Amino acid sequence: MKKHNFYAGPSIMPAFTIEKTAEAVLNLNGIGLSLMEISHRSKDFQAIIDEAVALFKELLKIPEGYSVLFLGGGASLQFAMAPYNLLEKKAAYLNTGEWATKAIKEAKNFGEVITVASSEEKIFNYIPRGYEIPADADYFHFTSNNTIYGTEILEDFDLKIPLVSDMSSDILSRPVDISKYALIYAGAQKNIGPSGVTVIIIRNDVIGKVSRKIPTMLNYKTHIDKGSMFNTPPVVPIFACLQTLKWLKDLGGLEAMEKMNIRKSSALYTEIDRNKLFRPTIPNPADRSRMNVCFVMYDEYKHMEPAFQEFATARGMIGIKGHRSVGGFRASLYNALPMESVDAIIGCMQEFEKQNA
Amino acid sequence: MKKHNFYAGPSIMPAFTIEKTAEAVLNLNGIGLSLMEISHRSKDFQAIIDEAVALFKELLKIPEGYSVLFLGGGASLQFAMAPYNLLEKKAAYLNTGEWATKAIKEAKNFGEVITVASSEEKIFNYIPRGYEIPADADYFHFTSNNTIYGTEILEDFDLKIPLVSDMSSDILSRPVDISKYALIYAGAQKNIGPSGVTVIIIRNDVIGKVSRKIPTMLNYKTHIDKGSMFNTPPVVPIFACLQTLKWLKDLGGLEAMEKMNIRKSSALYTEIDRNKLFRPTIPNPADRSRMNVCFVMYDEYKHMEPAFQEFATARGMIGIKGHRSVGGFRASLYNALPMESVDAIIGCMQEFEKQNA
Repeated sequence: MKKHNFYAGPSIMPAFTIEKTAEAVLNLNGIGLSLMEISHRSKDFQAIIDEAVALFKELLKIPEGYSVLFLGGGASLQFAMAPYNLLEKKAAYLNTGEWATKAIKEAKNFGEVITVASSEEKIFNYIPRGYEIPADADYFHFTSNNTIYGTEILEDFDLKIPLVSDMSSDILSRPVDISKYALIYAGAQKNIGPSGVTVIIIRNDVIGKVSRKIPTMLNYKTHIDKGSMFNTPPVVPIFACLQTLKWLKDLGGLEAMEKMNIRKSSALYTEIDRNKLFRPTIPNPADRSRMNVCFVMYDEYKHMEPAFQEFATARGMIGIKGHRSVGGFRASLYNALPMESVDAIIGCMQEFEKQNA
Repeated sequence: MKKHNFYAGPSIMPAFTIEKTAEAVLNLNGIGLSLMEISHRSKDFQAIIDEAVALFKELLKIPEGYSVLFLGGGASLQFAMAPYNLLEKKAAYLNTGEWATKAIKEAKNFGEVITVASSEEKIFNYIPRGYEIPADADYFHFTSNNTIYGTEILEDFDLKIPLVSDMSSDILSRPVDISKYALIYAGAQKNIGPSGVTVIIIRNDVIGKVSRKIPTMLNYKTHIDKGSMFNTPPVVPIFACLQTLKWLKDLGGLEAMEKMNIRKSSALYTEIDRNKLFRPTIPNPADRSRMNVCFVMYDEYKHMEPAFQEFATARGMIGIKGHRSVGGFRASLYNALPMESVDAIIGCMQEFEKQNA
């Protein structure tokens, strides 16, 4: 049976990435060595990381003066690393979910944190608007896509202070005006590659402005200066990322990818809005995530949720259980998920409706 | 032509690890999904990390009261993380090479550091002995194997203060009396798996004794409490580590591995000592590493080093160039390197001697 992979991350990868990575794990470029056993100082790996950086810059149209880094440790480490490097006195954060909350918690270890707005009182089911950002904050931080709650901020804010964003779950899903940002970080395991590597896009001039001592590995300068090779980088995950970047470019880049992502998420939201059994958890269509579509059953059908879960699982849907803090269902529609899988889950919903509504 | 992989790390992996990982990247356990696209919260991955922890404990005979963690970020991050968690006032370090020097540098961000002894004045070509360790230090740190200089400490020190060791390049190469240690850390990319994961063995009672605030991701307690799953762990590298652990167990465990490592390194050192062209860089046989065998040509033959490099490369030897700070040659003989490769490099040395001595 065909599997449809709706995991929230790690999640579906392009078949191209999977095949090329498996091939390289056996024998990289026919050199007779596995990708896992080459030195990171070899010309073979240098070519891999150089091409990954170049393609990342090309796809996101990253201007001069920015560095692209591939680091280990996960986006969760960036929750501390960003304020370690950028927070001198105070920082402003927007609280739109669990990851933003965690980022705020870590920043408080380093200085004052102003939470400019929060949607926590409504279980993060909307994106706050109309808040003020203090003009004297060291930076403003937001989470562009909220994997757990299914909201997304598609705007590149135009601020006078440095803009920092955790784009772990929607990076490369659409074009972004990088020139608006000082720092973007993203765990790879949604739209780029397997877990174990975090991509950092950093404007080189934002570092070196705090007075505290920064441990070498937590200092962005270390990694900018050494091109992500201060220590041994995660070789296999970086190779896999490169394959996804090639696949993205072949598909037509981020403009083409955005069109596909709009098409996929619109189709599913349209079905959720139409279907008599289901409703979306995010009321305002403008706040709904293209990446993580969250939905529950109407109260009168709520008892059928386990039955739908079983029904869908039996038809090859994987990873559609909603996060425990939201309940219901979540279908993650990352870049690599084909329209065919969206059609499949819509088919399940329609069939289940016919049998039960 | 058969390749003989003497890279210092990332380096040779067992064929078993390579084949099983390539297979899983295509289709994990026949479930129809790639290892790269399963959720780290899935039962498939939980089984992988649980088995890896259990096998690690079994192979190293780790006593009760210790945790085994698989974290991202590299051993270089541990240079800061160890003192972040353990250094309240002062720590004692033994300086035996570049990695120890880096560990000392990071520890100085957190408190007083006493360097109990150093072999730097002789380009780290010996292991210092007869030094004193302050009884009131928070811990004593040493690097068990010095990849760059080719020395190794095979002793498990019996101290009254917590013992901390960076075992990145010789972990799993021999049995270790874990009960002597408070903390051991090791980047995977020498003897365990591909780069991108660091193994931590920590005695649970050593944490929570410093007064400073520790960022969540840098706090060992976070990862002990969550079984390495506070954030998304490096799934593919951990899977590959598990395969190597299985391979090690099938080979007879660490006692059998130690015998093979003694046999391999003795054979190569014997040839270096015998050969008229070459000499070892570590004078005292008791200090010589079993993992990284460093050798140079005698002064009168020094000019032939590039010729030998070319000669050996033409015969399939890979990664034998010595580190720039030592020069000459370095053959890394990690667990996965077969005796056949040691015989091959010995053959090169003998043939080159016949043609040139």
